[in-house]
Amino acid sequence: MRALVYNGTKLVLDQNYLLPSPVEGEALIRVLQVGICNTDLEIIRGYMDFRGVPGHEFVGVVEEIYGKQVREQYSHLLAKRIVGDINAACHRPDCSYCKHNMPTHCPNRTTLGIAKRDGAFADYLMLPVENLHPVPDNVSDEEAVFVEPLAANFEILEQVHIQPTESVLVLGDGKMGQLAAQVLALSACSITMVGKHEEKLAVAEKYGVATHPLKDIEQLVAAGERRIDHVVECTGSAQGIELALHLVRPRGTLHLKSTVADKTTLNLASIVVDEIRVQGSRCGPFVPALRALSQKRVEVRPLISASYTLDEVLTAFEYAEQKGVLKVLVRI
Amino acid sequence: MRALVYNGTKLVLDQNYLLPSPVEGEALIRVLQVGICNTDLEIIRGYMDFRGVPGHEFVGVVEEIYGKQVREQYSHLLAKRIVGDINAACHRPDCSYCKHNMPTHCPNRTTLGIAKRDGAFADYLMLPVENLHPVPDNVSDEEAVFVEPLAANFEILEQVHIQPTESVLVLGDGKMGQLAAQVLALSACSITMVGKHEEKLAVAEKYGVATHPLKDIEQLVAAGERRIDHVVECTGSAQGIELALHLVRPRGTLHLKSTVADKTTLNLASIVVDEIRVQGSRCGPFVPALRALSQKRVEVRPLISASYTLDEVLTAFEYAEQKGVLKVLVRI
Repeated sequence: MRALVYNGTKLVLDQNYLLPSPVEGEALIRVLQVGICNTDLEIIRGYMDFRGVPGHEFVGVVEEIYGKQVREQYSHLLAKRIVGDINAACHRPDCSYCKHNMPTHCPNRTTLGIAKRDGAFADYLMLPVENLHPVPDNVSDEEAVFVEPLAANFEILEQVHIQPTESVLVLGDGKMGQLAAQVLALSACSITMVGKHEEKLAVAEKYGVATHPLKDIEQLVAAGERRIDHVVECTGSAQGIELALHLVRPRGTLHLKSTVADKTTLNLASIVVDEIRVQGSRCGPFVPALRALSQKRVEVRPLISASYTLDEVLTAFEYAEQKGVLKVLVRI
Repeated sequence: MRALVYNGTKLVLDQNYLLPSPVEGEALIRVLQVGICNTDLEIIRGYMDFRGVPGHEFVGVVEEIYGKQVREQYSHLLAKRIVGDINAACHRPDCSYCKHNMPTHCPNRTTLGIAKRDGAFADYLMLPVENLHPVPDNVSDEEAVFVEPLAANFEILEQVHIQPTESVLVLGDGKMGQLAAQVLALSACSITMVGKHEEKLAVAEKYGVATHPLKDIEQLVAAGERRIDHVVECTGSAQGIELALHLVRPRGTLHLKSTVADKTTLNLASIVVDEIRVQGSRCGPFVPALRALSQKRVEVRPLISASYTLDEVLTAFEYAEQKGVLKVLVRI
C-alpha cells in the first residue's frame, strides 16, 4: 500500500509499504481523508521520537475486523464510515488507568501516528474496534476529519465548568484556537479570540466570535486590566503562555492546549499569588464532537485551507507549514 | 513603640518607631505574639521589595477602633483577643475584586508586613476592623499565631474537592508541609509526607501522618509509579516542583503553596499530555482555621521550635534560618 513514512530524517511517500498485519480485536480501516495537525509538523521536527506513518485526524471505512467473536459483536461497523479514538489502551487487569476508565492515559498505550502505532497518511490503518465511532450520514468526510481535534476541545468542557456568564479569551487564531472558540462558544459565554493574523481572525468572525488583534491586547495588559475568567492558550509559544498569565484574572483558569515540546519558563510565583488554576488538556470525547457536527452546532468547513491527494502529500505538508494556512486535508 | 524594621539592607530593632496614625475603619492592636514565616525570611532577601515592619502571623488585643460609627458597630471587639486577615482591600465601588467578594485579590490591597502596610513585629499594628476574628478562650496565644498559615492550608480545601478515597502526598516537611498535612488529613484521605529531615518527619508521625524519606520517593519515581491524586508542593524549590510533576497521576492535581520568588522552569508538555491541574494557592479563610483549633482537630504546638521576646527578635530570626527548625515565636 501507499504510506507516508517519517524515517527520522525526512518524510518519504513509500509506494510499497507493508499492509498492517491482522491483530485480534482490531479493525483494518481504509482511509478516506486525513487532516494535517500541528503535532504532525512537530513529529517531523523530532517530537515523540516517532518513526513510521504519521497522521491521526482521519475518516475511513471499516474493511475487516480481526477475531471471530469481536467480528460478530462489531459486525454493524463493517463497511461503515468511522472515525477513531487515537489512543489504544492495554486493558491489562493490572493497569490502574484502564481499570479506572482512563484509556487515554494508559501508560502502555499506543497512539495512532504519534507513538508506537502507524497512522493515517496511508491507504490503510489499524485501530482497536472499540475505538471506532460511526459517522452520521449528514456529516461529510471533510467534516469528519475534524472530529479528533474537536473532541480535544470538548475535553476543556469535560474538565472545567465554563459558566454562561463567564468570559473566555482564546489566545491564538490557528487551527486549535478556531476549534476551541467554536466549542467554548456553545456554553454561551462571552468569548474573544486574540491572534496575529487578520485573515484568520476574519474566519472566526464569520461564525460570530469577537476578535482582537494581538497588539491591542498587549496594551490591555499594560493597563492592568485582568477580568478574564478563562484563557485558552493555543499558541504553544513561551510568549503566549506568559501573556495568558497576564490576562487571566486572579482565581481564573489558564487552559493549556498545546503540547509544547520544549521546557518553558513559567512565573510560578504569579500562579500562587493570583491562585490561578493551570489546566493541561489533551485528547477528548468523540461522541459530543460527532453530535455537534451532526447537529450543525459547529462549522468546520471555513477552516479548510486546501485539499491534496495522497500522491501530493509532500506538497500538502509544505503548504501546511506556510503562515496564514489553517487546515490542510489529504484525500487517500 | 518598639518595632523590627527591614530597611532594605538589614533588620533593625527600632526602640522609637512611630505609633501608627489613626485611620477611620481600622483598629489599633496591641500585639501579643508573632510567628516567623518563610515569607519573612524571603522579605529580608528582597522579596516584594518591602520596607518597614515585617510580620503577619500574629495574635493581639484590640486597643482602639477609629471612627465613631465603626467603633459602635464593632465595640464587642474592644479589649478582645483577635487574629486578623492580612489583606486589607480597597472596597472602592469600581473595584471588581472587592465587588465580587475577593478581598485577598484586590489589586489595591495592602498586606500586613508584606506589602505597603507595617506588620506585627512591633508593640502595635493596625488592620481594618472587618479583618478581625475573636479568638475562642480555649485557643492559646501560641496556637492562635498559627491561624493565618492554617487558613492558607484550608484554602486548598476551598479550591479543590479532596475526596476521602483519594491519596495525597505532601512534599516538604517544613512549617507549611506540616500544617498542610494536618489540614488535608481532616478529609480522611490517605496522606503521606515526604521530606529530607528525619526529625521533622517524626513530628508529622506524632499526629498520625505517614512519612517517607525523600530518597525512597526518588526510587518510586524511577520505577514509574504514578498513583497519587494530589501532590501538595511545599518546598518551593525547582527540584520539588519537578518531582511533584513526576509523582502526581495523570489527571491529578498539583497544589502549589510556595511563593517561589524566582522564575522556575516547568515542563509544560507533561502538564498537557498528562492533563494535570496545577492549582496556585495563597491566603485562606480564618473561620475554619479557628474552628479546627478550638475543636482540637489540629495540633500545632509540636511545631513550635522556640520562643523569644521582641528584644531578642534578631536572634529569633537567626535561629529560624537554621536547618531542622520549625516555627519560631516572638512574644511582644
